[in-house]
Amino acid sequence: MAPSAGHWSLPGGPLEESELLGSSLSRHLAHKVELKEIGFLEQLETRSDVTRDPRGRVLATAYLALVSSEYDPTVPGDTKWCDVEDLPDLAFDHRSIIESARERLRAKLTYTNVAFALAPKTFTVATLKSIYEACLGHSVSATNLQRVLIRRGTIESTNGVVASSSLGGRPATLYRFTHHHLRVTDPFAIFRPPHGAPSENLAPSGSPSRVAPSTAVRGRAHR
Amino acid sequence: MAPSAGHWSLPGGPLEESELLGSSLSRHLAHKVELKEIGFLEQLETRSDVTRDPRGRVLATAYLALVSSEYDPTVPGDTKWCDVEDLPDLAFDHRSIIESARERLRAKLTYTNVAFALAPKTFTVATLKSIYEACLGHSVSATNLQRVLIRRGTIESTNGVVASSSLGGRPATLYRFTHHHLRVTDPFAIFRPPHGAPSENLAPSGSPSRVAPSTAVRGRAHR
Repeated sequence: MAPSAGHWSLPGGPLEESELLGSSLSRHLAHKVELKEIGFLEQLETRSDVTRDPRGRVLATAYLALVSSEYDPTVPGDTKWCDVEDLPDLAFDHRSIIESARERLRAKLTYTNVAFALAPKTFTVATLKSIYEACLGHSVSATNLQRVLIRRGTIESTNGVVASSSLGGRPATLYRFTHHHLRVTDPFAIFRPPHGAPSENLAPSGSPSRVAPSTAVRGRAHR
Repeated sequence: MAPSAGHWSLPGGPLEESELLGSSLSRHLAHKVELKEIGFLEQLETRSDVTRDPRGRVLATAYLALVSSEYDPTVPGDTKWCDVEDLPDLAFDHRSIIESARERLRAKLTYTNVAFALAPKTFTVATLKSIYEACLGHSVSATNLQRVLIRRGTIESTNGVVASSSLGGRPATLYRFTHHHLRVTDPFAIFRPPHGAPSENLAPSGSPSRVAPSTAVRGRAHR
């Protein structure tokens, strides 16, 4: 009997002899979800706890994949979407991996535009607020969210509106993300290269770099 | 003869049967540098290119380790510190790993206080500027760097000063990092939990989260 039988686990499986980690991930994930629906994907971390798999030494490289809330991917009968606040019993160290992924997502939401991968193509501020709240685990102010993300150039309004959900309310403006690849959204952008620098950019001082970062390198290839 | 003989390579080596990746890293690195001098360490990524090692299939998990500029670790005769802008021929995919590490460091400098691991305990703005410039690869304004990092609460002045390097100049103030663990330094901090929220925090709106993030979980442990 397989270890952890009866427990749920993250989609995944063994790496083939001549397979890249990313290809392996796609292969295993393709059984569960349409890959074209994945808006953002990155390697999370490699776990190496010696006892993480009772069958023997197995290292696992975890990835974080984000799917837009406008998709509701159909999943096979042995698979389900789970509320991260209400997870079932999980096999191996998968609960810990999910916690780690959530931490990564929460951190990235604070300094990047990564929510583009979670939001519909166009959305109201109310929808975006609910996405941020779900990820962060606490409520946020729609007014501040809108103000900050517009000021940072992370989102912009479209010409579209949708009818307000409240009777007699004004139609709600539809927004979109200005970019659909990952960008650090720090409004100060102080450390970007000087070209195209916004006002608070650290202007080039004219003096060249005098300290170069170093990398420890050893002289013989490893055995 | 070992592959890539005559080429330089990053410190590293095989993972033992019952060894954690982190322990293995420490073991291999301990031959090269005093581990207590490492101010920041994180897993970078796992490389899986099938042809990355001509001897056969070898996956490599790379780490980013930062050492303060006030240390000048003595390294064994087969090892040297290299300017990242002037690397020698490197074995395997180690050049690409170094580029990836540098990208990670550059990004982290823009939204975290990670430079605490590179700077001396106390430092002048001129020293900090040279560290930022070395990492970023372009010059920055000392005035803006100082202003932004103080406003963000990333650095603070100490009572110490050092004599100015320019004749007749005022003594230069010594600064220190306010924290020596990694923190996201976004001054808006808009997405922190509501308790202890600074002024631009997204104040709690009173409404609970209505959308929970979901995680795809499948019902059977992987085989």
